[in-house]
Formats: sequence, structure tokens, C-alpha cells
Amino acid sequence: MADRLASEAEGYRLMTKYGIPVPKYAIARTMEEAEAAADTIGYPVVMKVISAQIVHKSDAGGVVLSITDKTGARKAFAAIMTAAKNHSPAATVDGVIVEQQMGKGLELIIGGRTDPAFGKVITVGLGGTLVELLRDVGTRVLPADTDEIRYMIHELRGYPLIRGFRNEPARDEEEVVRIVAAAARMFVEEVTVTEFDINPLIVYGKGCCAVDARFYVGDTRKPARRRERTEMDEKLLAIRSIAVVGASPDPGKVGYAVVRNLLGFPGNLYPVNPKHGMILGRKAYPSLAALPESVDAAVIAVPARSVARIVAEAGERKIPLVIILSSGFREAGDEGRKMEEELVAIARQTGTRIMGPNCLGLMIPEKGINTTFDPVSARTGTIAFISQSGAIITTIVDWSLPEGIGFSSVISVGNQADMTIEDFARYAGSDPSTRAIILYIEQILDGRRFLDIMREVTVKKPVVAVKAGSSAKGQKAAATHTGSLAGSHEVYMAAFRQAGVIAVDSIRDAFQTAELLASENYPKGIRAVVISNAGGFAVLSSDYAERYCIDLIEFSPALLAELDAVMPANWSRANPIDMVGDSGPDRYARTFDVMIRNQNLWDIAFVIAVPSAISDPIRVANELVRFSKNTRKMIVGCLIGGDSMKTPMRILRDASIPNFPELEDAFRAVGAICRHRCGPDIHECFGTSGK
Amino acid sequence: MADRLASEAEGYRLMTKYGIPVPKYAIARTMEEAEAAADTIGYPVVMKVISAQIVHKSDAGGVVLSITDKTGARKAFAAIMTAAKNHSPAATVDGVIVEQQMGKGLELIIGGRTDPAFGKVITVGLGGTLVELLRDVGTRVLPADTDEIRYMIHELRGYPLIRGFRNEPARDEEEVVRIVAAAARMFVEEVTVTEFDINPLIVYGKGCCAVDARFYVGDTRKPARRRERTEMDEKLLAIRSIAVVGASPDPGKVGYAVVRNLLGFPGNLYPVNPKHGMILGRKAYPSLAALPESVDAAVIAVPARSVARIVAEAGERKIPLVIILSSGFREAGDEGRKMEEELVAIARQTGTRIMGPNCLGLMIPEKGINTTFDPVSARTGTIAFISQSGAIITTIVDWSLPEGIGFSSVISVGNQADMTIEDFARYAGSDPSTRAIILYIEQILDGRRFLDIMREVTVKKPVVAVKAGSSAKGQKAAATHTGSLAGSHEVYMAAFRQAGVIAVDSIRDAFQTAELLASENYPKGIRAVVISNAGGFAVLSSDYAERYCIDLIEFSPALLAELDAVMPANWSRANPIDMVGDSGPDRYARTFDVMIRNQNLWDIAFVIAVPSAISDPIRVANELVRFSKNTRKMIVGCLIGGDSMKTPMRILRDASIPNFPELEDAFRAVGAICRHRCGPDIHECFGTSGK
Repeated sequence: MADRLASEAEGYRLMTKYGIPVPKYAIARTMEEAEAAADTIGYPVVMKVISAQIVHKSDAGGVVLSITDKTGARKAFAAIMTAAKNHSPAATVDGVIVEQQMGKGLELIIGGRTDPAFGKVITVGLGGTLVELLRDVGTRVLPADTDEIRYMIHELRGYPLIRGFRNEPARDEEEVVRIVAAAARMFVEEVTVTEFDINPLIVYGKGCCAVDARFYVGDTRKPARRRERTEMDEKLLAIRSIAVVGASPDPGKVGYAVVRNLLGFPGNLYPVNPKHGMILGRKAYPSLAALPESVDAAVIAVPARSVARIVAEAGERKIPLVIILSSGFREAGDEGRKMEEELVAIARQTGTRIMGPNCLGLMIPEKGINTTFDPVSARTGTIAFISQSGAIITTIVDWSLPEGIGFSSVISVGNQADMTIEDFARYAGSDPSTRAIILYIEQILDGRRFLDIMREVTVKKPVVAVKAGSSAKGQKAAATHTGSLAGSHEVYMAAFRQAGVIAVDSIRDAFQTAELLASENYPKGIRAVVISNAGGFAVLSSDYAERYCIDLIEFSPALLAELDAVMPANWSRANPIDMVGDSGPDRYARTFDVMIRNQNLWDIAFVIAVPSAISDPIRVANELVRFSKNTRKMIVGCLIGGDSMKTPMRILRDASIPNFPELEDAFRAVGAICRHRCGPDIHECFGTSGK
Repeated sequence: MADRLASEAEGYRLMTKYGIPVPKYAIARTMEEAEAAADTIGYPVVMKVISAQIVHKSDAGGVVLSITDKTGARKAFAAIMTAAKNHSPAATVDGVIVEQQMGKGLELIIGGRTDPAFGKVITVGLGGTLVELLRDVGTRVLPADTDEIRYMIHELRGYPLIRGFRNEPARDEEEVVRIVAAAARMFVEEVTVTEFDINPLIVYGKGCCAVDARFYVGDTRKPARRRERTEMDEKLLAIRSIAVVGASPDPGKVGYAVVRNLLGFPGNLYPVNPKHGMILGRKAYPSLAALPESVDAAVIAVPARSVARIVAEAGERKIPLVIILSSGFREAGDEGRKMEEELVAIARQTGTRIMGPNCLGLMIPEKGINTTFDPVSARTGTIAFISQSGAIITTIVDWSLPEGIGFSSVISVGNQADMTIEDFARYAGSDPSTRAIILYIEQILDGRRFLDIMREVTVKKPVVAVKAGSSAKGQKAAATHTGSLAGSHEVYMAAFRQAGVIAVDSIRDAFQTAELLASENYPKGIRAVVISNAGGFAVLSSDYAERYCIDLIEFSPALLAELDAVMPANWSRANPIDMVGDSGPDRYARTFDVMIRNQNLWDIAFVIAVPSAISDPIRVANELVRFSKNTRKMIVGCLIGGDSMKTPMRILRDASIPNFPELEDAFRAVGAICRHRCGPDIHECFGTSGK
């Protein structure tokens, strides 16, 4: 059944039920009733025709404003009746609604809609053209508690208009928060309401009033493609034996590359191929049935049409996990979708779990596991990378090797037919080797479940996500790519925020942020000091600090005195500390000592070192490590340069001190995690003034 | 003499003189005059007290609005006189100004002020709190022609309110442009006006009216620290012989490093040091006087106090250029400033030109010139890098070597006592080896001269600038660093825009943009195609294209058919072209052929290649070069990965095809240069819809 627009009276009843203030109003069927109603309500009043057939009341002359007395009331009623009859003779007119006319105030819009992936969401924005112009709105997935609602309101660029700004009087912020929260509760509890729009909510210095609203009712839309999902067994990826179905001696075949990549695997490895006795020096078996033992995982690299049979065999052998590299399923159209659903049905019966299909597989470097056909293998590290794109995994792993970045696990989720991004995120969240999690997401199948699970995960580990498909075209591209349409980007961003997931724009940002989060001494605040041997970069760091809401502290006379004692005469005598170009490692060391003694004054130290004829960057790096070991604060290295900085950078990495070869990246990444913790109230949050 | 606030009448006269519409008004000294004036003007009118002593008229009860008839006019006059007397009995009241009361409309603010570096500037913004809130204003250095003024207005985020937007009616844009241009002309021509403020200018569907304005008059403020500057001789840097004063055999000394770096210099090299006969295997001379010939340049690396004497000696030997590495001048305080001015005075007498002091020197790799004490030397290339920070030069040169970036010249301007950033920019502009110019700027001493010279230069060569010191603290840091206070950041940005200089935020952006500009086939438009072997990056490129205003063209059925012929069944069948993961060099080649045949349809091709088991990136790179050679369009490489992409990247670099290892950077950089050409009208400019 299609949604229908609820009547004004229904709308008012709904709002009243949830304590959303509406103007005094009354329904009047006759002129006498209209006049009486106006008297009781008190002038000025507004009168609107009530008729299911007349949708655009004003166009039909069905609305009269600023009625100031009895006569006006009678005239208005008559006028509306005539106008209505002339406009649409066939319409049944049930009378008029007489309503208190509200004074001017700040106008807010509150809307609710049902998102295909995340279900009911609420949106709030300031009324008025300029905000429409700037799309200044906040969104949250429901349910959302009052803090989230308040946060959403603070996020509005126009928020100062509520808080009070220059000549603008302060508005009743608490009442705004209460009402938006009430509207959210209404939307959640009234299951038949599928969409609504309170526009405007007029906000006064004291109190608010919803003067116009639209509610659509129908059968609640279920989030698209929800499916009962069983939880993933924590031990599922503790793999001690692997079979490779479709193993091949032909170097051109995927089944060759997979076996090759698994030759270093310390557990039992069983190539499966009926046509060969030996593959890459390992005994091959004709089928899973023929294996001497039931393995922990079967990698499947055979044509799509044969996959179902293999999955069934895996079930018979009680193999808990199949990793399906084969493509040609949902991403390839309807027939593929059917085959994919068949796989899931088969696996459900036997309890076998599916990774993929159409995925690259799994890497767990420290366990020697690499079920992909990648040309290279990731090195061991502390970052879990879970990606919906196999190509991005191949690229990132190739890139990570010279960068010296390592992984606890690299997971390609493919079509997520069975196990999804959030399942693997939960695994990474409880994996002791993982310190930070990076997600590359094109589409989340079950938004509610993602939200629930990620809320648990982000309490344990920092999670950074790149969400592709923000643009209209991007969503189209995602569709052709993953065979499914992505939800609206704003809703994803809201869900990330609510789940504690840090959203970033690019893969580089994701790794820089994750490395920062995986490093020692998560920042407790945004009070920063900058120490530099390059004046130019000191100047730039002030710009970047301001841009990314990092607070460069003012130095007290006492601190200045301590620094004067270790500095040349021409140092900057301010924060950023420009130690000037002739600074050697000793000057860094002495400056670090001052900052160690005064570490109660700051939360983050950005240490900039650039190549110079007289400073040995390796010694500077070692002093940096000592600095870090002697504080509980976050130390961020900005060793900027070329080959001369390679060894110093490795020294920092080995001490898990983050380093940024591009200065702006350092401030952006630190700013992102601070802002993530504190959102729009970042300065209040840290009790600093901000710039 | 201090500036004084001009009277309302003076203000109205000024505006009328320049054709800026003002309300009908009249001065009235008596109640009768007031009444008569109101009658002539026509009701409703506004009445304001005229008194030099009463500044805040409203507070003094000196303003009455909405006067609708004779009686009202008389009442208002009486009320104002009484109020004025009560408020400030001592004040002389010259009467009232009676003024036509204007109807509501869109409110604009036009302001003018005098910037220390650039002189008179004009600013325009939309009235109303939200815009104050968002600081939505445009600025231009004066004089500015009508196109610049229109551009400035189009830049406003609130511009659609003028153009007309949703329910907002279109306003009289042409009249707005005309009036802002008139105000600009007024500010330029009326030398005694030092500052003004038209607030608001009310904009109607037809016409505008300036209902309130303030003008300050005084003696025109000269831009700070202007100095007569003689032009730099084009041949000044065509150096065939060099003396190094302060040359030293001590490896710890600057004078040692400089001679070492010059040992590769093919011309005559003369170490100058009274205490040594030989330095690094070269005959040393006791003084410049003792040299066998007059050299083209003398590098000076002796303590500050001795520099003046050397400069004098250089003058006597008719040495055209001295490069003063010594510090301890303006940046070190008043005494230093005096010494610096002394140097300039001496040099002026003899015609010797000064580079520095407090600079790193000069590198012209292809001439074997390196007068710096840098540990490494830049390689030959096509980028001229001119920097106000020596440390940034050292850093960038070190960084450029592994990156394979080369320079036509690297110039450290130091304190700019004589020759300035713009002098060297002009040199680079006419240097045939330079294809793009990068500036690192902390402060411009003479804004007008910078503007004039850069206008010439940017016609010949693309110029990209990083302006440090945008933040309050940044400007403070710049002050301690360069011994001078930077002008306001917004004015710098306006000046860059007007001079055709591309402003970027970071050094990395500067080099990426410059490399793009130095490369073949400057983009003629923003119609782009994306070709990728990685679905994930195809999706991301749609997002980035939208973010940076690049237009991904729709494919016609004909083009789709051509592509279908060379693609696998499961390609994206849309732009971005996802050729899917199993693409080898041949598929790239065939796709390139299709795009070559259809090159009239697009302006830019982004080619994404990521590591894959079956594609050889070296062959892909070679196909890319062939692609580029067979189009007049811009080809942008996005070879993303690690070591496997190093050789392919070099292949592109050698063919001067830009490559971006981080996808977002590619779109940001291309977007920046397109936007630079077309500004806010980027889509109109290229006749595309935009997304």
C-alpha cells in the first residue's frame, strides 16, 4: 500500500502526543464555530480549509492569515468556503482549521525519512534560503540519544544563530534539543509513519512552536536486503590447515598463484585438482572428499558454475570456512545472483561460512597465511585492512612494502554473500595483534547490524573508514562494481559518527590516521608545541594548526626563560619554536628536556627536522625516541626530506612514533582524531579557547 | 593627521558623484524645512540628526523611521531635537537629514580599506547574519576592472541569492556589478578617502540603493616600506665566474661547503681568504681586489659586520652581483636592520645588485652553479623554485632527488634587501629552461610591484605559490622569522588571483600542480574520462571528480559500442571505465585507441593502473606514452602502488606525463588549474553542466 499524507489534525495529534508544541487550534465546520474558535484561541489567528482533495491550500485560496477580530473570522470563513467551491467544486470540504498565528523567530526544519540501508533517519536544518543554499543540515540514524541529537545541532554551521551570535539573541537551545529528540522518538515509535517534515519549527528566546508539518503513513519500509545473519565464530580465522580447490601447475592460473603464496604456510596445505598428482611440490588430491583430514579452510578458485558443488562437498567434510575467489556471481547480473543465493543456502544447511564470493581472499602475515593470488605478500604489523575492493588490497599491499607498513590481517570481503565487513571488523576488534582497523567500504548491506557491531568494536580499537561512492556517479560506479546500490552518503557519515568510526576521504588519509591511532600515547587534548629547525615550516605549522583546530599553547615567562637557556639568541621566543637553522641534535635534546619537564602544559609535540649541513637526522631521530619514552604525551615526527631521512624515519617507525613526510598531513591527521573525539565542541571539549 | 569620519552629506555627495544611487534626501534646519522636505521627497521618510558630536545617532534618539505624513514629520523633528539636547546638551545640532525610506531587498556590504602591502583594496559581502557567520566576502586589490569585480561577486557562496535561487527572485546583478565597480573607482580616484563602508546596499529586482555609508578621509596611507627598486638585468644570473669571500678549508664552515658545491662549476672559481693560499685545491686570493679578473658574482660568507666592506670592494671591482649568505641583519633586530640598509646604500652607489642577505644562495643545475652550503645539489629540470625560506629549499632539494624532480633554478631570496621575489620570478619567466615557477612566500614587501611584475610573468609561465602565515600565529611566526609583519591573507589571495598566480596550501600541492603545468598538453577543458583496471579506484575517482569540479562525460551509445568491442562482458559500461581486474596492457592499448579516435569528446584522461598478477605496468606505461603522443589532450597517469610502479613512473616522467601515486591528488591538482582558469564559473566557462 502506498503512503498517504496524514491530515493536519492527525499531525497535530501526533505532535501533541510527543510533547511537540503546536499553535492553539480548533476544527470548525460552521461560521459560528469558526468565530467561536477564533475567540477562544485569541487573535491574531490563521484559518485553513480542511479537504482531502485540496492539497495546495494556498493556491486554492484556502488559507487566510492575520485574522484580528470576530468580523475578520466570519469573513475569512466565508471567503475560504467560496474560494474552495470555486477552485474545486467536486471537493468535499470538512470545514476549516482555526489556528493561533505565531510570532516571528528563528526557523528550523526537522525531517525524517527511511534509508534503504540504515532504516529511519532524522535530519535537522536551519530554515531560510542561505542554509538551503549551503545544505547546512545534520543527520542521525535512529534511535539516537539526546547527546547525539545535541551533537547534531552543534554541528550545524548556523548553530551560533541558536546559541546567540553578535546581534542575534540566544534561542531556547534546550527546548530545541528536547523537541528534536521527541520527534526522533515519535518517528521510531510510530511504526506506520514512514516520512515526516516539521517545517518550520519556530524557535524563540523561550520555547518553540511547530507551525506546519507533514506526516506520511504507510507500512514501514524495511531496510533493503536484510537477511538473518549468524555471528562469526571468533576462531574461524585461526586456520591451521588449508585446501586449495582449483590448484594448478599453470603459472597463468589463479590456482597456481594461491598455492605459491601459501607455500610458506606452516600448517597443512592440500592442493585439490583431479588432473594432477603433484602441484608445486605438494601432493594434490582429486577432491575435498579425498583429503586425509577435514581442513580449517578451503580456498575455491574454480569457475562459478562449479562452486556450489564444492561448497556442498566442503559441508560434507565439515569444513567451517570456504574462501571463494571465483567471480561471476551477484556482480555479474541476475543469473549470478541466483547462483550466489544458492551457495548461501547450501552453506546455511551445513554451517559452513562463506568469505566472498568474488573476493581476493585473506592474508594473516604473522601466521604465514596468504590465500590471495597477489604478486606480493604483506608484512606483519598491527593494522587490519578490510576492503570491499580486491584491487585496492593488491595496490595497498604493494605500496605498503617500501613504506614499511605492516598488517595484522588483510581481508577481502567480496560480495559479502554470507560474512560481511562488520563480521570481519569484529574479528579484528578482538584480534590481539591488531591495534587499528581500516575499512574500505562501497556498500553496507545491513546498516543496523553494522551500527550495532561497530559500536562494540570501536570501544576496543580505533576504526578508520574510506566510504567510496559519495557522488551520484560514484554510487552508479559502485553499483556496476559491486552489483548493488549504495545508500546516501550523508547517512553513512552519520552512521560512522554514531558508531565511533572515523571517516576519511582517501586511502592515504586512512593509513596516516590509522598509524597515528596505532602509535603510542593517544593524545589527551589539543594543546600542542611545535619544535623546528626550519623557520619556514614553523610558519606553515601555525597555519595548519589553525586550519585543523590544534591549539599552539602560549609560552609562560617561566617556560620562555627555560628555553632561552638552551636556545640561540635569535630563536623565535614563541610557539612554534624555531630553533633556527644551525640546530644540531644537542639543541633538540635540550629542548626536549625542557618539554619533558613541562609536559603538564601540552598534549602533543610536533617535532620538525629537515636536512641541514650540520645536523645529523639519525641522532635527532634517536633523541625523538628518548623524548617519546620520557613523556606520556603524543610525539609526532615531521622528518621532512628525501633519502637522508629514510633511516631516521625507520627509527621512528620501529619505536612506533608516527612520522609525516608532508607537514600538513601531520596536522590534518592529528586534527581528525581530536575532532573525532570531540566533534564540533572540540575546544569546549578540551577546555581551550581555540583560534 | 588622523582620519576623520566624513559627514552623511559629504558621503552622499561622493556616492552621487560616482553614480551610486542613494535615497532622495534633504537637509533641514527647521521644523518647517523638515516638513517641506518630507513632502517633496514623498512618504515614508526617515529623519536623522546632524551633529558632529553625536556619533551614535540611534542611541541618542536621533533617528526616527517610518514617518508617513506631515504631522509625523513635525513630531519627528521635535522629538529628535529634544532627544539630542537631553542626550548631549553640549552638542551643536545642525538640523536633520530627511531621507526617503527604502523598501526591503537583498542587502550587500561594500567596504574599502588600505592594506600595508598592497594599498587600497575593496571587499564585498552579502548582508545578514548567516554570511557574517560564514565570512562570505570577496576581496580585490585596486584598481580592478569590471570583469574582476564580477568575478569577485560570483565567488560569493551567497551569489545565487543575487542570480536568483529557488523561491528567491533574481536581483539586478548588472547594477550590482556597476555600483561595486563605481565604488572601486571612487576609492582609487578620491585619494583622501582612506576607508569606507557602504552598508547596506539594498539590491532589488531592478536597481539598487545605498541607504547607509561611512567614509573616512585623511592623508592616503602609503603601502608600508615601499622603496625605489631598479629592475634586475636579465643577464645578471648568466654567471661565468664566481668568487667566494670567506672560503675556508675547515669542513665545519659554510665557506668550505660553498666552495665544495662549486667545484663542478665549469667557469672560473676564486676562493677569497687572506689566511690561505689554496682551498680545496683551488688557488685562494687575499681579497676581491687581488683577483686577476672582475667576476660575475661574489658569494659572501663572512660575519655580518664585515659584509659592508666586502660589498664596497665588490663595487670597486665592478662585480654586478653579490650573494650574501651571512645572517644577522634585518631578521636580527634594529642594529641588523641598520647594517642591511647600509649595504643597500653602498650597492646602490656602485650598481652592484644584492641577493639576500640571510639567504641560502643560488642553484642553476644545468650551469653547474650551486652557491649554497646544502649537503646535496638539485638535478636539472624545468621547475624554477624561488623561496623565502632557505630551510625549505634544503628540504625540497633533498626530497626532489629520490622523487626524480629537477630544477631550472633554485633561488633563496633571504631578506630581499635589494632584489625581491618578483625580480627573480621575472628572471625565471624569461628563462628558456623554465616551464613552471613555484614561489614560497612569507611576505611581499611591495604588493603593487609584485602584482605588476607577476601579471607579466604569468602570461609567459604558470606560477604556483604557497603563502605561509595565513593564521594569526602564522603571521607572528613569520614576523620573528623574516623580521617583518605579513599582510592580511585574504588580500594576498586576491592579489595572487589578480596576478594569475595559482595559490596552493602545501609544498606538495605546489610541486604536483607545477609538474602538471610543466607537462605536455595543458587541459583545454574539464571533460574527463577515467580508465581503470581497479573497480575501487574507479568508484573513488567519481567522488573526487565531483569534489574537484571535473566533468566525467556521459558515453554516447556509439562510444559505448566501440568500447564494448574491446572490453570484457563485465566492464562498467560507463565513465569511469572499469576494465576489471584481469586487464592487461593490450586492453589498455585498445581502450586508448578508442579514446584517441574520440578525442574531440574529452579534454583530460585519467589513466589508473594498479599492480595485478597479470598486467605488466611497464608495458602499460609505454602504452600511456603512445596514448599521450597521439592526442593533443592532457593525459594524467595514476600509477598507484609501490616498487612495482617505480619504473613505470619514471617512464611517464621522462615523457613529461604527470603521474599521481595518490588518486585524490590527481583530481585536486587538475581541478585547481581548471578552477584557476575559470574561477567560480568553471562550468559555464567550459560550457558543461557540472554535477
